[in-house]
Amino acid sequence: MNGSSSEKRSRVACLALSGGVGGAKLVVGLARVMDPVALLVVANTGDDFEHLGLHISPDIDTLTYTLAGLNHPKNGWGRADETWTFMAALEALGGETWFRLGDGDLATHVERTRRLNAGETLTAITADFCARLGVSTRVVPMSDDPVRTVAETPDGPLAFQHYFVRDRCQPVVKGFRFAGAAEARANPSFLEALADPGLSAVVICPSNPFISVDPILTLPEVRAGLAASPAPVIAVSPIVGGRAIKGPTAKMMRELGIPCTALAVARHYGDLLDGFVVDSEDEALADQVRELGVEVLVTKTVMESLEDRMSLARAVLDFAGRWRRP
Amino acid sequence: MNGSSSEKRSRVACLALSGGVGGAKLVVGLARVMDPVALLVVANTGDDFEHLGLHISPDIDTLTYTLAGLNHPKNGWGRADETWTFMAALEALGGETWFRLGDGDLATHVERTRRLNAGETLTAITADFCARLGVSTRVVPMSDDPVRTVAETPDGPLAFQHYFVRDRCQPVVKGFRFAGAAEARANPSFLEALADPGLSAVVICPSNPFISVDPILTLPEVRAGLAASPAPVIAVSPIVGGRAIKGPTAKMMRELGIPCTALAVARHYGDLLDGFVVDSEDEALADQVRELGVEVLVTKTVMESLEDRMSLARAVLDFAGRWRRP
Repeated sequence: MNGSSSEKRSRVACLALSGGVGGAKLVVGLARVMDPVALLVVANTGDDFEHLGLHISPDIDTLTYTLAGLNHPKNGWGRADETWTFMAALEALGGETWFRLGDGDLATHVERTRRLNAGETLTAITADFCARLGVSTRVVPMSDDPVRTVAETPDGPLAFQHYFVRDRCQPVVKGFRFAGAAEARANPSFLEALADPGLSAVVICPSNPFISVDPILTLPEVRAGLAASPAPVIAVSPIVGGRAIKGPTAKMMRELGIPCTALAVARHYGDLLDGFVVDSEDEALADQVRELGVEVLVTKTVMESLEDRMSLARAVLDFAGRWRRP
Repeated sequence: MNGSSSEKRSRVACLALSGGVGGAKLVVGLARVMDPVALLVVANTGDDFEHLGLHISPDIDTLTYTLAGLNHPKNGWGRADETWTFMAALEALGGETWFRLGDGDLATHVERTRRLNAGETLTAITADFCARLGVSTRVVPMSDDPVRTVAETPDGPLAFQHYFVRDRCQPVVKGFRFAGAAEARANPSFLEALADPGLSAVVICPSNPFISVDPILTLPEVRAGLAASPAPVIAVSPIVGGRAIKGPTAKMMRELGIPCTALAVARHYGDLLDGFVVDSEDEALADQVRELGVEVLVTKTVMESLEDRMSLARAVLDFAGRWRRP
């Protein structure tokens, strides 16, 4: 938001680090309340996997579908107005059906896989899909190199989607590792935006810290880039009143020996944070977060309507304004 | 049909060489009027191609869907009760849509491709798909090795599906070649059945001779196997009254400089034939075919109803009985 940001329309004013559904809600809000072209969304790809020979990028797709207004309104994955003929036919042929792929959704996976095999990058393909679906916000994978989240369980390691979808998070989890992260290169657009003096805010969306945000943070240069960024790093707590808004975060935190509180999320991000956004329900925790040396915004963070998403987005961007240089 | 054929239920009594829709009609008739387990269908795979990263076997699928009662009643390809959500979504993403893939049909291609990439043969996968879809007749690819039909046009060679589907047979065709055929191994089940003294009939279905049957005949050992087979080789003419029942056969024959008559089809197969089946409409040609040294059956060959298919199948099998050893 300094003078030079208007010189080039595609210059990034806000970076959002996001997983799937929870993050996508705030991303949609941000894209509505700011110039959507100045928003760069860095999507977790630790959940990506190969299934039925197809490259599936669940978080990229949830973000893209949500920004395009194509997302299923309730599921938190997949598309609205979907048909399921493929799945029924696959079942009749004895194929694996634990990962539900709608007929329209399948086009994304088939075409992406074709283009990856033809040598295009996930970044280029995602940009093209966004453009074709009318999404002006840029969504980029955290890396074009393969990073695969692995859940460590008492019975050994489990590929993320086996843990998450096939086994429905039933196995006790002792920790996660991100295979390939050490050798992966963070998306250059992400690192460039982080270093840009015109950047006003880095928003860590209310996604699961352990499986949606940590894979991004684990990539080389990302922590250093966040620390050196001129923009404040602000996380929105995915935990409200000791509960996860959606998904298995609470069970996971119990198993990892971490209290299921917004405070524990702030501690998890630690030094990385300049600001932290907690729900009004968690106002009592604000002082403890401040003791970590982190500024706190208390506001309504539960997003049901589009208006909720836009309000939270506005509040987060206003909060980021506190760090603005005069 | 000799004494030993009942000893082993899976022993082949009738071999059918077939392309897609025209052949599939007679195959369905055969499977109804004889023990379906004793029918072995050898499917042309010269039409197979890789599309969107998927291995597509149009003739195998038409045969399998038709035998399973899943085929589209009018199109001659694909499935009944199909949805088209994938295709619409693919179009929105800028993917190639000239080859129409229904949502249910897609399951066949995705699962087949997955299994091929895992090292299974097309023969094994086809057998499993047939079993799962309740098809007791064995359908085998003519070969597990890749054979690709190429249309020679004045503007150069065209991959078969580009010629056939994308360009709708508009280019003038000077000839066809079958890339890979010389190095391919004919399906062992096919060659074994040909040599089996228990075999009663080899039926060349009323498929296009140039693009559906020639690829099979071009494979090493097939012509010799047909010549040496104890069973009569009987072709059913796909040309009736100077017209092709379906598809571009007539246009193709004109361009290849071959008269569009049943007689020309019999000449094309030549020495290979013991018997030839022409429609009642072509009775006048029967004597000319007989002059080629080929026995002729004149009957109704146009198949509209299931009863038509069964009647023709019965007539063809009865005709084959003329060669039965006493």
